[in-house]
Amino acid sequence: MQKFISSFQNQTIKRLLQLQEKARLRKKEKAFVVEGVREIELALKGGFQVQELYLNPDLFPAEKGEKLLASAAEVIHLSPEVYEKIAYRGSTEGVIAVVAAKEHSLDQIKFKSKSPLILVAEAPEKPGNIGALLRTADAAAVDAVLIANPRTDLFNPNIIRSSVGCVFTNQIATGSTSEIIAFLKARQIAIFGAALQASVPYHSVDLTGGCAIVVGTEATGLSDEWLENTTQNIIIPMEGEIDSMNVSVTAGILVFEAKRQRR
Amino acid sequence: MQKFISSFQNQTIKRLLQLQEKARLRKKEKAFVVEGVREIELALKGGFQVQELYLNPDLFPAEKGEKLLASAAEVIHLSPEVYEKIAYRGSTEGVIAVVAAKEHSLDQIKFKSKSPLILVAEAPEKPGNIGALLRTADAAAVDAVLIANPRTDLFNPNIIRSSVGCVFTNQIATGSTSEIIAFLKARQIAIFGAALQASVPYHSVDLTGGCAIVVGTEATGLSDEWLENTTQNIIIPMEGEIDSMNVSVTAGILVFEAKRQRR
Repeated sequence: MQKFISSFQNQTIKRLLQLQEKARLRKKEKAFVVEGVREIELALKGGFQVQELYLNPDLFPAEKGEKLLASAAEVIHLSPEVYEKIAYRGSTEGVIAVVAAKEHSLDQIKFKSKSPLILVAEAPEKPGNIGALLRTADAAAVDAVLIANPRTDLFNPNIIRSSVGCVFTNQIATGSTSEIIAFLKARQIAIFGAALQASVPYHSVDLTGGCAIVVGTEATGLSDEWLENTTQNIIIPMEGEIDSMNVSVTAGILVFEAKRQRR
Repeated sequence: MQKFISSFQNQTIKRLLQLQEKARLRKKEKAFVVEGVREIELALKGGFQVQELYLNPDLFPAEKGEKLLASAAEVIHLSPEVYEKIAYRGSTEGVIAVVAAKEHSLDQIKFKSKSPLILVAEAPEKPGNIGALLRTADAAAVDAVLIANPRTDLFNPNIIRSSVGCVFTNQIATGSTSEIIAFLKARQIAIFGAALQASVPYHSVDLTGGCAIVVGTEATGLSDEWLENTTQNIIIPMEGEIDSMNVSVTAGILVFEAKRQRR
């Protein structure tokens, strides 16, 4: 039987809103919320399980429907008013999923290539920047994205949205800075840290071997622990009034220099 | 005599809030609001005139004070409560300026180099992306940033903030796509459009001569008018699930490839 909800007071709707707002609840329930056809399809392609699918039947495109509907353990129809309340894009898409979380553990990372290219970000915070990093990593088809000391959980709806689903297309792991350094060193991956200290221009180093490009925060750069463990620090020469660029732009320039060298 | 305001109902305070919120008022009054010591200093360095300076004396760093105070036609002290209400960073900085706007007209652009490097963005909308573009342009010391068919005025407080003041450090002009194409052609500037159509890999073209790198919107790319007028379309090869990157990341990769070739 098809469930239908038209009340804002419904407990299911309240939980859905809370899953979007509260990282703690996402962690406790091991579930998170994904909005939009493309994003949900990328989650499925990435091996995630859809637990519940919430539809506004007026908006949900029928031709996309069957595959998504078949993927869900439960399908619930919502009134347009309720859908609009829980959706970020209330008047388009028409579909929201509750998806089972997966662990982002380092030991699950498998490199696709013999000379892996890895993007590491230390303590990124702004969801928009993390989303842009993940889009860059997807476009470059890096082997893995490693987030050291994460300050935002990756199933934050703003990250999913700003990554346009690339949070599902990349191999991602999180860990402490120590754990990630140990992981890289055990695999003989060269570590190139974006830093001002003792650094050489980024385009003067050989990035064709297995390597990790490591970017820190815009406010404080890389931590001492990273700086003490880099193979070489690299710098993007700055010629302006300001001494830093947006972190996702920095990562894009460095990752695509590696790609250019590898072509 | 020193002015002091401690009432939220004060007309000056209401106008200050409106100048931040309403592009129309900024246009009518030819003035805008800048918050923060570094941002105001960059505006002064860029030749902008400070009309009024609003201080929370408890927060405003005295050692930075003299230069800024001397720059302003009028200085007004605010109670901490009023300052917190009008400031984005209510508990730091302690200084907000009303600054006279300048025209961003194409005929004021002067190239610094014989082979100018120009960044053109068509119809960018998100303040965060525009801010990141301007930071990249500053770091690369491009000759000019040209915004075609702007959809957001450049004195929007979110642009000033996300550009960390680089809206004052670049030579910037706005105009219609037709005007900017005419401007570039009249100066024999090669036009490289970031596009999927009839394009070659970005690193295979010579970007060492006078050239403009043109990026469009993430949703629709460059308009037909641009595509019909490019010297060559260039593409960043995409190997992932998603066919677009963040627009400021794309611009960063292309601009710094030009810089790399020029070194």
